[in-house]
Amino acid sequence: MRPVAFAGSPIDRADQIRVDDAALAGLMDWRARVLLLDGLLPQYDENGALAWGTLADVAPDAELVFLGLLGGKACFAAVPDAGASGPAYAMPQAWAAIQQLAPDDLAIYGGARSLVDWHARHRFCARCGGKTRLAKGGWQRTCASESGGCGAEHFPRTDPVTIMLVEHSGRLLLGRQPRFPPRSFSALAGFVEPGETIEEAVAREVFEEAGVRVRDVQYIATQPWPFPSQLMIGCHAMALDDAITLDVTELEEALWFSREEVAQAIAMQGSEEGPFRAPPPAAIANSLLHWWLERTA
Amino acid sequence: MRPVAFAGSPIDRADQIRVDDAALAGLMDWRARVLLLDGLLPQYDENGALAWGTLADVAPDAELVFLGLLGGKACFAAVPDAGASGPAYAMPQAWAAIQQLAPDDLAIYGGARSLVDWHARHRFCARCGGKTRLAKGGWQRTCASESGGCGAEHFPRTDPVTIMLVEHSGRLLLGRQPRFPPRSFSALAGFVEPGETIEEAVAREVFEEAGVRVRDVQYIATQPWPFPSQLMIGCHAMALDDAITLDVTELEEALWFSREEVAQAIAMQGSEEGPFRAPPPAAIANSLLHWWLERTA
Repeated sequence: MRPVAFAGSPIDRADQIRVDDAALAGLMDWRARVLLLDGLLPQYDENGALAWGTLADVAPDAELVFLGLLGGKACFAAVPDAGASGPAYAMPQAWAAIQQLAPDDLAIYGGARSLVDWHARHRFCARCGGKTRLAKGGWQRTCASESGGCGAEHFPRTDPVTIMLVEHSGRLLLGRQPRFPPRSFSALAGFVEPGETIEEAVAREVFEEAGVRVRDVQYIATQPWPFPSQLMIGCHAMALDDAITLDVTELEEALWFSREEVAQAIAMQGSEEGPFRAPPPAAIANSLLHWWLERTA
Repeated sequence: MRPVAFAGSPIDRADQIRVDDAALAGLMDWRARVLLLDGLLPQYDENGALAWGTLADVAPDAELVFLGLLGGKACFAAVPDAGASGPAYAMPQAWAAIQQLAPDDLAIYGGARSLVDWHARHRFCARCGGKTRLAKGGWQRTCASESGGCGAEHFPRTDPVTIMLVEHSGRLLLGRQPRFPPRSFSALAGFVEPGETIEEAVAREVFEEAGVRVRDVQYIATQPWPFPSQLMIGCHAMALDDAITLDVTELEEALWFSREEVAQAIAMQGSEEGPFRAPPPAAIANSLLHWWLERTA
């Protein structure tokens, strides 16, 4: 499958440095590069690439996340005052960044955004309510017992989400959520819950949302999605039959599309023509449709 | 691949009920079944199966999680006073449950344990430090704005972890963590971090822990692992070469084992003989070794 957006970061995470306070402190000097953010949004240099600054560009008391090494230089990002929740489609400036940034920059930005957003939304301890502080270069927060906390350690979260192409008689099941732009359809998707496998989550979600039973769930590819921090797990499954029973609290519509319709929608991406509006190129759903078209070519 | 432990729960999660307060309230009567727990540990009936009680068996102010429907009956579990952190190997009574329970019961217990443990460790809001309360049948906690909270919604977490068989010239790379029982070796493993795919996480972890570069990462199977709530993502990868550089903070030893050695270790499971002690049958690492032996048979 072709590369997915937000994957392929060129940053070396250098995890051995995170746990070495002295090494980390030694990197925080005038040579350190700091990813310049406006809240959670990227800033751009004169070439439209990610803008980087130095530690002089952030507040002296800013919490800093160590992103890793890039070209031998230590890279950091500062935790903003507030995080964000809500999906990417509701954030026009984030979408603009997705359009504008080159793949390497997009991967760097996405990874950094997930991390600093998590910190901004986790300044307190879920176990005792006390204040937490950044630890291990930003790969942990600690409810420090020496300052009266309970000692709990908290880690950035990554939420696994299944997203699946469901096939029956050469057609694909795609759905539209009420919040989607007009004419847009995409692959069904849902969070993996505690106590189930990826394959079980796929089958459960497709049945919940469309009333369709599936077999032969196959893993295709994953994508990190930084709104706020999802691991999109792309799968394919065969439907037992094509009768749809819609869960209207989740989906406004779900339809079976032929190969020709999917191919047309992809070919006419961005126009108002075509049988439906395909998911945007940055979404793994788009990559999965390309994969399916190539597979069935 | 043969079924993995903790998967295949017979409970219908009935997610439409979670969001329907009236339906949920209507299920909480004398017919409701409550999974009896001693803290986070299961209780057993006279046949060694999971013991179930009624709402009369839990404190009137207990927070209750709606697990779903089983044989048409609503199933709940109460949130204990305290959660647990730390790995399963350090919990002898939890290990005993794994040995004792039949597959269906083990899946029910695992899913319930992950959920109630999450609630017990998330009584406060990570965003503002306020008290949260259980919502949506236990599939959410809310920092209720009507009682002075910030309104943030929190969801049970599931942490994706890659666990991988790394192969070179017909041999497998297995490692032992310092905490493992004597002579035990298992597949290398590590958390998927924000900003990376499953395949990138596999490659990063193998390089970090053993200094080995891999290619052709292939997804095999997943397992929900309830200590506390991990999604174990089993993979296979080919190593570019077999020179090992050990990260001694993660691993005590890493070795290449031949097909014969792996087969012997699996055949002699539970004995003190064999070239090494294989991971226990309940672990996906064990299933992956079986898969590999069958694949290379």
